[in-house]
Amino acid sequence: MERRRFVTSAALGGAALGAVASVLPKPAIAQGLPEIKWRMASSFPKSLPALFGGADFLCQRVAALTDNRFQIRPFAGGEIVPPLAVLDAVQNGTVELGHSTPYYYVGKDPTFGFGSTMPFGFNERQQMAWMRQGGGLELHNELLKGYNTLGFPAGNTGAQMGGWFRKEIKTPEDLKGLKMRIAGIAGNVLAKLGGVPQQIGGSDIYPALEKGTIDATEWVGPYDDEKLGFYKVAKYYYYPGWWEGNAMIWTNVNRDKWNELPPSYQAALETASYDAYSWVLSKYDTENPLALRRLVANGAQLRPFSREILQAAYKASFEVYDEFAAKNALFKKTYESWKAFRDTEYLWFQVAEHSFESFVYSQRTAEVRAKK
Amino acid sequence: MERRRFVTSAALGGAALGAVASVLPKPAIAQGLPEIKWRMASSFPKSLPALFGGADFLCQRVAALTDNRFQIRPFAGGEIVPPLAVLDAVQNGTVELGHSTPYYYVGKDPTFGFGSTMPFGFNERQQMAWMRQGGGLELHNELLKGYNTLGFPAGNTGAQMGGWFRKEIKTPEDLKGLKMRIAGIAGNVLAKLGGVPQQIGGSDIYPALEKGTIDATEWVGPYDDEKLGFYKVAKYYYYPGWWEGNAMIWTNVNRDKWNELPPSYQAALETASYDAYSWVLSKYDTENPLALRRLVANGAQLRPFSREILQAAYKASFEVYDEFAAKNALFKKTYESWKAFRDTEYLWFQVAEHSFESFVYSQRTAEVRAKK
Repeated sequence: MERRRFVTSAALGGAALGAVASVLPKPAIAQGLPEIKWRMASSFPKSLPALFGGADFLCQRVAALTDNRFQIRPFAGGEIVPPLAVLDAVQNGTVELGHSTPYYYVGKDPTFGFGSTMPFGFNERQQMAWMRQGGGLELHNELLKGYNTLGFPAGNTGAQMGGWFRKEIKTPEDLKGLKMRIAGIAGNVLAKLGGVPQQIGGSDIYPALEKGTIDATEWVGPYDDEKLGFYKVAKYYYYPGWWEGNAMIWTNVNRDKWNELPPSYQAALETASYDAYSWVLSKYDTENPLALRRLVANGAQLRPFSREILQAAYKASFEVYDEFAAKNALFKKTYESWKAFRDTEYLWFQVAEHSFESFVYSQRTAEVRAKK
Repeated sequence: MERRRFVTSAALGGAALGAVASVLPKPAIAQGLPEIKWRMASSFPKSLPALFGGADFLCQRVAALTDNRFQIRPFAGGEIVPPLAVLDAVQNGTVELGHSTPYYYVGKDPTFGFGSTMPFGFNERQQMAWMRQGGGLELHNELLKGYNTLGFPAGNTGAQMGGWFRKEIKTPEDLKGLKMRIAGIAGNVLAKLGGVPQQIGGSDIYPALEKGTIDATEWVGPYDDEKLGFYKVAKYYYYPGWWEGNAMIWTNVNRDKWNELPPSYQAALETASYDAYSWVLSKYDTENPLALRRLVANGAQLRPFSREILQAAYKASFEVYDEFAAKNALFKKTYESWKAFRDTEYLWFQVAEHSFESFVYSQRTAEVRAKK
């Protein structure tokens, strides 16, 4: 399936544009196109240079593509809109554009989870393939239409870490009563396993962990986690983040504002989103390994989740999905597309991709050991 | 390291542009920007819908971004330029733009290999991270400058398959005397292992394999391989393609022509390349699993390369790199950057990414077995 354009050139033809352009000043370059200034509300703070940096990169690309006539100013989470209220602000037109991740809104509808990631779901490549060529983008925009917005993928963190724990976790029994800061649908899964999921904003996590108000927290991965200093108060750093094999970031546009854009500005916003996506992902992939080394040097203890824990969480995740699907028609429709695509992707990725990586990583590990 | 702009806006300011624009017709939209028509020579045939489709997608995006004022027409391999002569055609200005993969030109300089992929090198994410944020793009453009061109990543196939063999290959001994169609630096590695690498164009491979003139061939992966029908004459389909953990496709632009472009058209070409990159990759990731299923249903016998063969090839590859590095200063400089980045990436990717995937694939395989 190919992606579709939301608005064709015909929807905003030359006549309409001419009318807009005629009342605007006309400098030497691109004098036929209007000067437009938009505001973008991001869910992310400036202290996350890959995520907020991605918003900044996107706005700069749109400016470059339009000879600075379409100017978007990015605002960090909390500057003009609270981090978790970005979707509402775009929906009601407070800002034209948002920069966020859909699973922040699973309280409105669990179907938002598919736009970011689902526990035991896709890796980054699989998520993007489903979005661009497997029908995911159309399904997510069907959901967004109910909020008078539309969206494009604009970043990804890659697979995240399982987070920071004050004590070692060895069996599913150890999760019972565990108070953990954890986002999105993973919270439902943790609750099914007997844990106590907590929703806590970024800046409040460290003191809660230090005091023992919570026993564990997940955040993103080494690069972002390092900045919040969790290793000082909860030294066990677990992997993998089974609830986030990838996490997709999006630009969300108010539909009325979108429809007012000239087609070339619409194209600029869409294409710059995919460019920013690659920029954000490559930023994480470059910085995470360096940060992981520093964290381990500072005393973080790397621990894999046991197979027993992973299997219990896997079972609980699919039970949660079935429960949502029984109550929510769009969740069910999206889940069925996601699940069928996942089965097919897993078949292929374990042949060439996974066997290549398994060999090169084991070979490299053997080399490092031989040098010691 | 952040990527740099090749030409700043200052290099082609409003005055120069105005002079160009004044002699051109001025329709209602974007009348300040010139109408430009370019030709893009691709190395790939129309029968490869992900690769040539990527060229087509890119040209359409550039048109959409510029209100159809910057029009690029893509030509398939052989239409106006032979598939392996694209770089020369861009260098000498026969076409303004090329769409190809650098390792087609390792005969000119083995350093081109790094632009596409190297045996036992990066997966797709790692290749892009090195390019965009690890200095790879600057190094590759240092090489391209000697050919009066510059380039942007514009597609990737993902990990490729190891190709089609008439007989089973079990030990490194079985590679001795093996006549195999194989591209790029992997040919040097095969020769070191006692094999006989052959350079054969796409359309000539099938008859050579059928007659037994060659014993084996690699091409891309299931989606592209299926179209050439190799499974009918060489049923053993090996994985992984250890010489291509990813394969990056590029747009290459003649530097003089690039310098003539208005800055917003330069931005359009660059940003559309990254958008096309994602389109091509997601196309492969969507189509490969479906094609693999069909190939197996049609009698292809999937076989993993033995660890013994992979280890012999690994050793031979790094010997080949050391030999090139001893003779070629730019190869050495690029190799050192690549190798250091690879060590760091491997450390990180095996923690969260690989452990997540190892679990979900094994779990899925267990489910499929349980259903049978």
